[in-house]
Amino acid sequence: MKFSGLFLRQLQQHVLPSSKFGNIARNWSSMAPNVGKEEKTSTAPTGAVDSSEGQADHKAVVSYWGVAPPNITKEDGSPWRWNCFRPWETYKADTSIDVKKHHEATTLNDKLAYWIVQALKYPTHLLFRRRHMCHAMLLETVAAVPGMVGGMLLHLRSLRRFEHSGGWIKALLEEAENERMHLMTFLELSQPKWYERALVFAVQGVFFNGYFLAYLASPKLAHRITGYLEEEAVNSYTEFLIDLEKGLFENKPAPAIAIDYWRLPPDSTLKDVVTVIRADEAHHRDINHFASDIQCQGHDLKDFSAPIGYH
Amino acid sequence: MKFSGLFLRQLQQHVLPSSKFGNIARNWSSMAPNVGKEEKTSTAPTGAVDSSEGQADHKAVVSYWGVAPPNITKEDGSPWRWNCFRPWETYKADTSIDVKKHHEATTLNDKLAYWIVQALKYPTHLLFRRRHMCHAMLLETVAAVPGMVGGMLLHLRSLRRFEHSGGWIKALLEEAENERMHLMTFLELSQPKWYERALVFAVQGVFFNGYFLAYLASPKLAHRITGYLEEEAVNSYTEFLIDLEKGLFENKPAPAIAIDYWRLPPDSTLKDVVTVIRADEAHHRDINHFASDIQCQGHDLKDFSAPIGYH
Repeated sequence: MKFSGLFLRQLQQHVLPSSKFGNIARNWSSMAPNVGKEEKTSTAPTGAVDSSEGQADHKAVVSYWGVAPPNITKEDGSPWRWNCFRPWETYKADTSIDVKKHHEATTLNDKLAYWIVQALKYPTHLLFRRRHMCHAMLLETVAAVPGMVGGMLLHLRSLRRFEHSGGWIKALLEEAENERMHLMTFLELSQPKWYERALVFAVQGVFFNGYFLAYLASPKLAHRITGYLEEEAVNSYTEFLIDLEKGLFENKPAPAIAIDYWRLPPDSTLKDVVTVIRADEAHHRDINHFASDIQCQGHDLKDFSAPIGYH
Repeated sequence: MKFSGLFLRQLQQHVLPSSKFGNIARNWSSMAPNVGKEEKTSTAPTGAVDSSEGQADHKAVVSYWGVAPPNITKEDGSPWRWNCFRPWETYKADTSIDVKKHHEATTLNDKLAYWIVQALKYPTHLLFRRRHMCHAMLLETVAAVPGMVGGMLLHLRSLRRFEHSGGWIKALLEEAENERMHLMTFLELSQPKWYERALVFAVQGVFFNGYFLAYLASPKLAHRITGYLEEEAVNSYTEFLIDLEKGLFENKPAPAIAIDYWRLPPDSTLKDVVTVIRADEAHHRDINHFASDIQCQGHDLKDFSAPIGYH
């Protein structure tokens, strides 16, 4: 993979915020903030300067701190709508991945991880049955936790031990962010009910702390658990696709956020979205089993460069 | 900022891992892993396949999971040495930033934050005095914590509440990673003594938990604390630069990792490195004061798109 000078100039001209290239951040203060999903407010903080209501406020604090976001446009010149991801973070999913692959649990560590995931799986299957959309939403709120916990603990470890990370911090945080984007996508298709929100509150509280302790106690067990969790996610999405094939659900048009994030054609449908999300889960399955394998062999994660940007 | 088709093709051809563009990840399995700072091991895990010692092992597990990192080269064709950051994450620091800016503490919230930072500052100044390198290392192990804590808590909040983040998760995690890169840079210049390592252990344990609770209790207080912490970081680096000017320290050549990360000229020195690091800290100061201002005005962070990539 060649990193060319031409690319760097492209990057400089079209993508990265100007401050990265030595221009004055204050230049941005006159720019309008991005118009997008997450830009709902009309007022803004005044910071340490006096100013009136409305956009004037935002401009004031922005010119005071000089931290306005760059104004990004799409290829067609229309404004970039998403603050949660940038054009250069979008990708085409690798759907050629083997969605059936399963890591045989041979050691005690693997078997423990496998049965923990099985124990978590059955109640949710009983609860949701064919309500795939709700199931997917709950699944993503859980699936976005391990990457964040692992990334954070490796970050702290790297600081504490004054050692490199091998890129694993970034790889795990990318995984967490990718799972969160799945949730944001499903949110465009269906809104959770109050009891689903309540359930997520409870589940996150338990799962985050449980996984945190598991990762402290045994990273190889934690990564194996995530590997099996992702295997189950792949299976759930396969069932989702089968039921979509059968026409048990309306194959809605893909939401705009999904079309932009996975660079899907404009006429894509829910089926296309579920297919690329399943591919992402399969990649996370591989990364986590790989991470567990490294440690099961008595090596350190940092000794193997992480597959950054591997969705 | 125009996002052109030409750029996308550049990105496709030169930078992103091939799997992102629908190729088969398994193709990578035959590729050698990156040769770099963090690629010290000679053996590798076998995963779920039988294989012999050495690189063969790595290839085996890689071909089993298909998650080998892409083989990235620099402009001159030499291999990219760093797993912790990629060519497209490097940048030229904006050194035009105002390094003297100070947020006047007017409210109780601001004053509390200010005095907490003052209380933390004096013992460290007494401890290190002119030992700037040790001071900088301890400072970075602390400065890399708030961004990670804030990013993690906003991530969990976004999942729990089924709401967008406004890009703040990424902005704060970027800040944490940037601070960690400062530490990795100083490590190339001086190795911490055993008692400094012990000190970092203790300080991280206390500071991480303290900041975690502070962010849970009052994000605007937490961001203000970080804002003042970064103001102090800027001041320390200014003193460092003054003493370098005076010739109290050897102005060593800049380490390779710094030259690649900040795109510095090959003949750069420690002074150039400290200058760009100080600029980064000034940017983090602005981001955190800005974040606190947003919340002090009764707004939600997510209502203002975050300045991603603003170092």
